[in-house]
Amino acid sequence: MSSNTSEEKIKKVSIVISKGSLEGVYQGLIMGNGARMEGIEVNLFFTFFGLDAIIEKRMDKLKVATVGNPAMHIPSLVGILPGMSAFATAQMKKQMDKLDIPPVGEFIEMIHDAGAKLYACRATVDMFGLSMDDFCPQVEAIINVGKFYEVSAGGQIIFT
Amino acid sequence: MSSNTSEEKIKKVSIVISKGSLEGVYQGLIMGNGARMEGIEVNLFFTFFGLDAIIEKRMDKLKVATVGNPAMHIPSLVGILPGMSAFATAQMKKQMDKLDIPPVGEFIEMIHDAGAKLYACRATVDMFGLSMDDFCPQVEAIINVGKFYEVSAGGQIIFT
Amino acid sequence: MSSNTSEEKIKKVSIVISKGSLEGVYQGLIMGNGARMEGIEVNLFFTFFGLDAIIEKRMDKLKVATVGNPAMHIPSLVGILPGMSAFATAQMKKQMDKLDIPPVGEFIEMIHDAGAKLYACRATVDMFGLSMDDFCPQVEAIINVGKFYEVSAGGQIIFT
Repeated sequence: MSSNTSEEKIKKVSIVISKGSLEGVYQGLIMGNGARMEGIEVNLFFTFFGLDAIIEKRMDKLKVATVGNPAMHIPSLVGILPGMSAFATAQMKKQMDKLDIPPVGEFIEMIHDAGAKLYACRATVDMFGLSMDDFCPQVEAIINVGKFYEVSAGGQIIFT
Repeated sequence: MSSNTSEEKIKKVSIVISKGSLEGVYQGLIMGNGARMEGIEVNLFFTFFGLDAIIEKRMDKLKVATVGNPAMHIPSLVGILPGMSAFATAQMKKQMDKLDIPPVGEFIEMIHDAGAKLYACRATVDMFGLSMDDFCPQVEAIINVGKFYEVSAGGQIIFT
Repeated sequence: MSSNTSEEKIKKVSIVISKGSLEGVYQGLIMGNGARMEGIEVNLFFTFFGLDAIIEKRMDKLKVATVGNPAMHIPSLVGILPGMSAFATAQMKKQMDKLDIPPVGEFIEMIHDAGAKLYACRATVDMFGLSMDDFCPQVEAIINVGKFYEVSAGGQIIFT
């Protein structure tokens, strides 16, 4: 394996956030925040259930998925119980807080203020009957997939 | 943030479709279709459960996942009920239809006719005991991961 | 569609493994192994639930997700039953074995010996209260997201 010190640095990352679970959204935001801290240009493109992360009424109520993820080590028969998702969510929020990772709303504000650009996906905005009024003020625009490829040019696309 | 108008445009995207849920498959197809509409070269690589989208008998019977996705806002105890996935699937299909997004089979035909190349993943084809006869005619070939990297050269890989 | 024979070959892939289900981890490992077999440089970055794949006590006990994946064709009311995930996991392991795809622990050893570099994500290592002692010896280091972008420079990032 050759070392990679001579490679040209990554200049831009365009992160698609497609999941609406708390852990799914955090993965995209952590990848975005880490990029901004390195001076890398960042675009966040929220699509499908990921839109929940920029809907003002929902962004701070995202929940952890307690079923469909064997790595949670919660048996499905327990995971489906009404209180489990709330419990796992509270646990994860406590852990995030310990690591100084802010709640979703605040995290988005922070990443935006650090220079990241936030976009909502036109197709899913229409599918769910949403408009700019539903989104937090950090959202720059509602754009289609073609425009997303345009703003992503010259960088890496990361689909989370 | 500097503007990105001077960046070289994206020439090619190679989209891996690994999920077999209706919403998972649509995400990959929408990313692919949006790329073709911009004149971007498109490869679709179907692997693991994503193979369901190109299996002729299954492609139009894909279902929405109603558990394991807190953003569906359906309690797990309700989501596991036999009729729920069918109900959520019918709802999503109705929304897609309103947006002129065709059913999966027709959508794949459309993207293929627009010039996208479709491939099935050799390892998972073998794992599930499938062959070219199981797939829709738009599938170009069954290729291994190494060949996938070869056709993806010079573009972006998007794993959905 | 122009042919892509004149494109510059992919030199490096950096694969993020974020899921802890058996099928999720295998997807990342298969993409990594296929790359090494073509002489492509490979970095594996384990984050969130994907960390289970490098935790020595857990790596060979990963389970298939039997709920939240409609493509499993198992009704949710059945999928939540205690024995189902173990059953589906045994089935997948049998299929993998037939294809000469080794169990996770052995697979990781093989990819590492073939020259891939393995990294654990600093933020999630701290979140779950882990340390290098919990990981298999093939893990090179615990690195933050910024360092991940650095080692990924000049290649493709694939988020699985």
